[in-house]
Amino acid sequence: MLKMDAAALQRFLSAEFLQVAEDFILEHVDMNGLTVRLNVDHRHLRPGGTVSGPSMFALADVAVYLAILSRIGPVALAVTTNCSIDFMRKPAADTDLICDVRLLKLGRALAVGDCLLFSEGDDRPVARASLTYSIPPA
Amino acid sequence: MLKMDAAALQRFLSAEFLQVAEDFILEHVDMNGLTVRLNVDHRHLRPGGTVSGPSMFALADVAVYLAILSRIGPVALAVTTNCSIDFMRKPAADTDLICDVRLLKLGRALAVGDCLLFSEGDDRPVARASLTYSIPPA
Amino acid sequence: MLKMDAAALQRFLSAEFLQVAEDFILEHVDMNGLTVRLNVDHRHLRPGGTVSGPSMFALADVAVYLAILSRIGPVALAVTTNCSIDFMRKPAADTDLICDVRLLKLGRALAVGDCLLFSEGDDRPVARASLTYSIPPA
Amino acid sequence: MLKMDAAALQRFLSAEFLQVAEDFILEHVDMNGLTVRLNVDHRHLRPGGTVSGPSMFALADVAVYLAILSRIGPVALAVTTNCSIDFMRKPAADTDLICDVRLLKLGRALAVGDCLLFSEGDDRPVARASLTYSIPPA
Repeated sequence: MLKMDAAALQRFLSAEFLQVAEDFILEHVDMNGLTVRLNVDHRHLRPGGTVSGPSMFALADVAVYLAILSRIGPVALAVTTNCSIDFMRKPAADTDLICDVRLLKLGRALAVGDCLLFSEGDDRPVARASLTYSIPPA
Repeated sequence: MLKMDAAALQRFLSAEFLQVAEDFILEHVDMNGLTVRLNVDHRHLRPGGTVSGPSMFALADVAVYLAILSRIGPVALAVTTNCSIDFMRKPAADTDLICDVRLLKLGRALAVGDCLLFSEGDDRPVARASLTYSIPPA
Repeated sequence: MLKMDAAALQRFLSAEFLQVAEDFILEHVDMNGLTVRLNVDHRHLRPGGTVSGPSMFALADVAVYLAILSRIGPVALAVTTNCSIDFMRKPAADTDLICDVRLLKLGRALAVGDCLLFSEGDDRPVARASLTYSIPPA
Repeated sequence: MLKMDAAALQRFLSAEFLQVAEDFILEHVDMNGLTVRLNVDHRHLRPGGTVSGPSMFALADVAVYLAILSRIGPVALAVTTNCSIDFMRKPAADTDLICDVRLLKLGRALAVGDCLLFSEGDDRPVARASLTYSIPPA
């Protein structure tokens, strides 16, 4: 069962991540995972007009975090312990990025999610990422 | 279009990887990816009766390799350049492992595939892996 | 032999990465690798007063990029294809981050570097990262 | 302080990992890390006469495990949760592999080590690996 729905997650983001909350829009959440959009803006771009690696990392990181919170609620202080990311294609510059997350493991101490990132409207993934979060004892 | 079907891939495995060919059975291949089974045997086990990490790595490695060959044919000398693997649950000891591969990128020089590994009959993944292969110029 | 020294790398950063150039200071470069400092500022912080994961990723990414350019010169359009990063300790909030890079491989098509990141003045690494860059044909 | 020296670690390996103990020789251990040798044998080879990826993975995995045990003693049931490995050069076929480990973090719940692997007598690394182990509560 979901502990936080899309509206609750978006409110959490606005309250806790003031600096970046406007970058990310929670599009959808269910028991299988969720979808987050990155509002691509000039500050996410690299020379040559492509979305920067750190912006893609940030999107995957926040998306897996929200997927965990959707299942355990807003109390946890989960922290990223590992990320592996493959950059596979050049994202379109003037197009939002869409990140689909699957939560593969939700244990007592560790959670693992993986993501595919797409330039909106193109079904070939621009990046793949997997992240581990450490969940502190309640 | 597939350049090698399941029978061709299994023959390739038998001819080129004599030492380990009997470990792996190609279950299914199509344009979306493929499924390989690891015949779990005592030599794949660790103390405590679980499939060893190197055996799971070997399964993911061969599965992505075969997924690439299914699309480019048996000529290439592709080599693994990177693997990231998350071990998420303890596999059952007396149960074959099933590895589902998606080929996420097949470029001229690099290919990326990701895998989920399952103990047969249990739909919670025991491991997740992503691999990059370097494909030499023709 | 180095193709770009510290001053040349810093000028390259200022010219090509206008948006982030002021964040990074090249401290040292030689044939074994280089050291880059992240000027930690409020925009790099997360709630709780720690440097954000994306800021650490960005530091590792730019540091390996500069290590490659120091050896092949400013002409190349190298792109990150893979990053694996382990976040091991909470960085101090009001302290610059120092990133030490070793270039482990510099091939014709692929380069691999690894990094340790430290909060200045503390010799326990806060993060470890390894990155692969694809180097396009000349 | 070390809880297990080289002789104790080698005995542990022989007792607990009967199947593979003869493959690995503990060369050196101190507070900074340790060195393990893989006795390269025909069963570690791939067609073309190179050491297989799974053999290199197994070497890195056992080496980080022993580095952790050297510091916390033989009681723990630590398990690998993540490995990222870069294969950078083709190892020599008739040459032992040497694996140097640094233990970067040894926390209550998680430990992180990284490795460089060399063909004996060549100082260019053939592979780089980083591994996370989960350490169960005492």
